[in-house]
Amino acid sequence: MSLPRRDLFEIPEGVIYLDGNSLGPLPKAARAAMDRVVAEEWGGMLIRGWNAAGWMAQPARLGDRIGRMIGAPAGSVVVGDTLSIKVYQALASALEMRPDRRVILSDSGNFPTDLYMAEGLVRTLGRGHELRTPAPEDVLGAIDGTVAAVMLTEVDYRTGRRHDVAALSARAAEAGAVMIWDLAHSAGAIEVDVTASGCDFAVGCTYKYLNAGPGAPAFIYVRPDLAGRVRPALQGWLGHAAPFDFDPGYRAGAGIERMRVGTPPVLQMAALGAALDAWEGVDMAEIRAASIALSERFVAGMRAACPDLRLASPADPALRGSQVSFAHPEGYAIMQALIGRGVIGDFRAPDLLRFGFAPLYLGTEEIDRAVDVLAGIMRDGLWDRPAYRARAAVT
Amino acid sequence: MSLPRRDLFEIPEGVIYLDGNSLGPLPKAARAAMDRVVAEEWGGMLIRGWNAAGWMAQPARLGDRIGRMIGAPAGSVVVGDTLSIKVYQALASALEMRPDRRVILSDSGNFPTDLYMAEGLVRTLGRGHELRTPAPEDVLGAIDGTVAAVMLTEVDYRTGRRHDVAALSARAAEAGAVMIWDLAHSAGAIEVDVTASGCDFAVGCTYKYLNAGPGAPAFIYVRPDLAGRVRPALQGWLGHAAPFDFDPGYRAGAGIERMRVGTPPVLQMAALGAALDAWEGVDMAEIRAASIALSERFVAGMRAACPDLRLASPADPALRGSQVSFAHPEGYAIMQALIGRGVIGDFRAPDLLRFGFAPLYLGTEEIDRAVDVLAGIMRDGLWDRPAYRARAAVT
Repeated sequence: MSLPRRDLFEIPEGVIYLDGNSLGPLPKAARAAMDRVVAEEWGGMLIRGWNAAGWMAQPARLGDRIGRMIGAPAGSVVVGDTLSIKVYQALASALEMRPDRRVILSDSGNFPTDLYMAEGLVRTLGRGHELRTPAPEDVLGAIDGTVAAVMLTEVDYRTGRRHDVAALSARAAEAGAVMIWDLAHSAGAIEVDVTASGCDFAVGCTYKYLNAGPGAPAFIYVRPDLAGRVRPALQGWLGHAAPFDFDPGYRAGAGIERMRVGTPPVLQMAALGAALDAWEGVDMAEIRAASIALSERFVAGMRAACPDLRLASPADPALRGSQVSFAHPEGYAIMQALIGRGVIGDFRAPDLLRFGFAPLYLGTEEIDRAVDVLAGIMRDGLWDRPAYRARAAVT
Repeated sequence: MSLPRRDLFEIPEGVIYLDGNSLGPLPKAARAAMDRVVAEEWGGMLIRGWNAAGWMAQPARLGDRIGRMIGAPAGSVVVGDTLSIKVYQALASALEMRPDRRVILSDSGNFPTDLYMAEGLVRTLGRGHELRTPAPEDVLGAIDGTVAAVMLTEVDYRTGRRHDVAALSARAAEAGAVMIWDLAHSAGAIEVDVTASGCDFAVGCTYKYLNAGPGAPAFIYVRPDLAGRVRPALQGWLGHAAPFDFDPGYRAGAGIERMRVGTPPVLQMAALGAALDAWEGVDMAEIRAASIALSERFVAGMRAACPDLRLASPADPALRGSQVSFAHPEGYAIMQALIGRGVIGDFRAPDLLRFGFAPLYLGTEEIDRAVDVLAGIMRDGLWDRPAYRARAAVT
């Protein structure tokens, strides 16, 4: 293969897209795939699509395809719901596996929804569980025999800082804690090997680096030797051993199937399938190398051209995911000025400009051009306008 | 208006579709709506679609449109997730509202996923709650001061039998129990007035009579005076008061917004929007009258032409939803023979043939033709073939 595969994506004329860490661009094939599932399958097959078009098997089939990108064996990943729901499923099962422990260990850099879902579960359980959120660098030392579950996001959504998955997973195993990895900013971004890590659960989303579209479903991995023993908290009918028997009582489906909940989002899954096609034959090691080359080039360019923007990500690319962030007190307005000129990144309060690097559709030309545009904005103070300072609802 | 609005739907040539109670047909406008959101919004706006295309506000906006069909005021319904998840949210909140009570009262005719989700919640809570499932006709008498929540589906998915919403809701209120209605087979099918019922929660799906497509999102209603006090068990970031502040701690959003969980399924919501367009200006009383006329015509036709098929639904149309079911020991093979001839209903074990009536796209011609085809199958024993007896995974 050769990167980038820009021609597989619909990138608007004049746009340099450095926000694939938030929402990936449209794979050209997804448009036709969506129209086909809408017109031919829903329209033409109607209810028969569940069998004839294989809708029912899609969550496992797509899960297997994602599994190949994260080192998970066939039959250990399933697609559905949102990442928040998948976090809840993993954590609820984890706590049930460790009835004598009361600590959920996360970190202060985790994505808020993971912490909110944990908080909600703790309150719902009402059994005195405690959610601890030390600084990311203090997590390793905080894993001890009181910890029921370690729940971490590998790559920090703000800075791109990357956790040491191997060391943390090993420490969790040693302490008898259940290990849950959130791969939201990892899947499709960096090399992931859930099997090698030995973790118990992994969850992630598909609308970032996997490019499956806004609101695309999430995924969950359960270690194969564990999957048949996990007790789902969210006992939906499609996780039942025989959903169409309509038994009054729940019997958990085989292995990972039990992590399915309700009716799968068939239309969104069509987009996901097309998005995964763009990954066929891609070597994640090559993606990682290309991502590092792009981000290092960006960081070097910024250092030279935009010295007022402070690198907020680890300087060592091995310690970050596939994004870099820069801090500036006027970060919001600067990002709006940048977006106004066709270079799309995003902003996270209080002062972070985020830039994601997706080698599938980005090359050195885009990186150099982005630096140039940003340098021009900084040099001429072009960000200092009321229109760029006015905050939108979603940033 | 005049019914039916057949021209708004894509019904394959030669097909008579009596399975809209399971999956509604494709509204013609949904195809273009999907393509537009994929190409123009996702493709053209990329991340900017959250603001520019109003993706973030869609769950509430679509919720308001559904609200108008079920007697819910603006700002009391929100769309997202699956019905299983919405059942869980409602029930978990309900149990938290009645900490001193331990009984969840449902019935043996409820759709299995509602019971499974309740069972899973009971086990997760581990506080000795009990799920009771008397026969549907015994529920009213079983509501007493020990019941924390009454969780019922208005229309039975097998027989179409309809609960007395007013009487049950009143009895629940009197007993101090939280009332949760599952409107899966009600929304778009019959007249619903959640406000008049006084119920606390209502949930439903949009892929049946609302025609929003396979895997379309669910909805939840919370009574307005209650919404600001409900504590969500599933504390997702999009139910937070200020999701984009990325606070480490959860603060519930205003009113119904707190029942949102994760990132909404933007692409599926586009189909839902187009599907709801087909309902604009429709009077639910007129729909109900037309549905009864169609089902009564069907029942009368069947009585005359197919005496071997026994009506398994209430004979009084006031006591059923918008479907009728007939029982026959060879029901499965009979339904396959029928589907093979373009008349699509479905089968539920052990012996039920189900037929749904959706006056938006069905008229008397379709009903008469369906009866004729079925009569021919029965008269000539056309169902008695190995191909029709072979069971598919999903029926």
